[in-house]
Amino acid sequence: MTDPTGPSNYETLAVSVRRLIDATIRTEVSPEVVAAAAAKIDSVTNELSAALMPGSFGERTVDDGQPVAAGNAVIGIRNPSAPPLVIHHNDDGSVWTEFTLGAAYEGPPGHVHGGVIALILDHVLGAPTHKAGRPAYTGTLTLRYHRPTRLRRPLRSEARIESVDGRKNFVVGSISDADGPTVTAEGVFIHRRESPAS
Amino acid sequence: MTDPTGPSNYETLAVSVRRLIDATIRTEVSPEVVAAAAAKIDSVTNELSAALMPGSFGERTVDDGQPVAAGNAVIGIRNPSAPPLVIHHNDDGSVWTEFTLGAAYEGPPGHVHGGVIALILDHVLGAPTHKAGRPAYTGTLTLRYHRPTRLRRPLRSEARIESVDGRKNFVVGSISDADGPTVTAEGVFIHRRESPAS
Repeated sequence: MTDPTGPSNYETLAVSVRRLIDATIRTEVSPEVVAAAAAKIDSVTNELSAALMPGSFGERTVDDGQPVAAGNAVIGIRNPSAPPLVIHHNDDGSVWTEFTLGAAYEGPPGHVHGGVIALILDHVLGAPTHKAGRPAYTGTLTLRYHRPTRLRRPLRSEARIESVDGRKNFVVGSISDADGPTVTAEGVFIHRRESPAS
Repeated sequence: MTDPTGPSNYETLAVSVRRLIDATIRTEVSPEVVAAAAAKIDSVTNELSAALMPGSFGERTVDDGQPVAAGNAVIGIRNPSAPPLVIHHNDDGSVWTEFTLGAAYEGPPGHVHGGVIALILDHVLGAPTHKAGRPAYTGTLTLRYHRPTRLRRPLRSEARIESVDGRKNFVVGSISDADGPTVTAEGVFIHRRESPAS
């Protein structure tokens, strides 16, 4: 049963699969051992597939206490492809997160893929605009890459709303390493109209 | 040994882990079965970790025929978190790719994460600018989100160089579903100076 004081078994499984992803990329064991590993994994996948929700995690209609964003590509604790980021909200409405990215996030050798930077900044810039029951969606996002971002270094991303015009939130943010920002971004995040007619 | 006419065992392993990622997010089997699955995966990870390359795949210095981008976050055939995209180059220099995204790429319920769109467009827009031995790096990237992009639908992304100014390539591209573009993008991709002094 789920322990309310710790990670659920589902979250623990995702942690295990994240380690497996890294080992799958970096392993140098023999092709025979790799083939045997694939067979074992297929067996586990079959066991887990004995009961699968249709579609994706966010499309579930049950409420069993699991967070709705558990499958999210950036923050999903059940998504092994997600780092997953933990977004912290400051009293002034700004947000921040700290993380390290490994082999699964590579673009140029030894460096974070520019698209992974964009993936993270889209999520982090959107975070300060979310209101309970009223999410905001990306309208435009502009990224400026100042210098490369290394893998396996402590990184920090932050964002804040600069101004609001009706349903539009103008947000700025960045990803930084120990030497300062590597990529800066600005975006417009838009709340849907609250009218049910829209 | 690697069969030159088909996928390597390493690529087959990545395919298996991709299926496992999807099942990890979507499984509804009991917590006990999930816990047992995590233990089996940890065992496989330990076997694969008996010999691990240091760092990331792109940092390898050996040349054993494996493509240097095998670990890439977007196109890496050994990276289970990558879709992985296959980029096709047209005679006129433009590029295209077709793909479908499942539960691991979710943002809003049932929809592709806006950041995943950015991840893919960064890579696809960069593709037409790459020259052998002379990669280009993202300078700026601007994305315009016109409407949501659904999971599990056939998608197409394409990009072409609009103009070149010295080391700068001005590139435009899009992601489309059957009804047309959902997100359009423009970016500046920059070749490093060829001088060894730079």
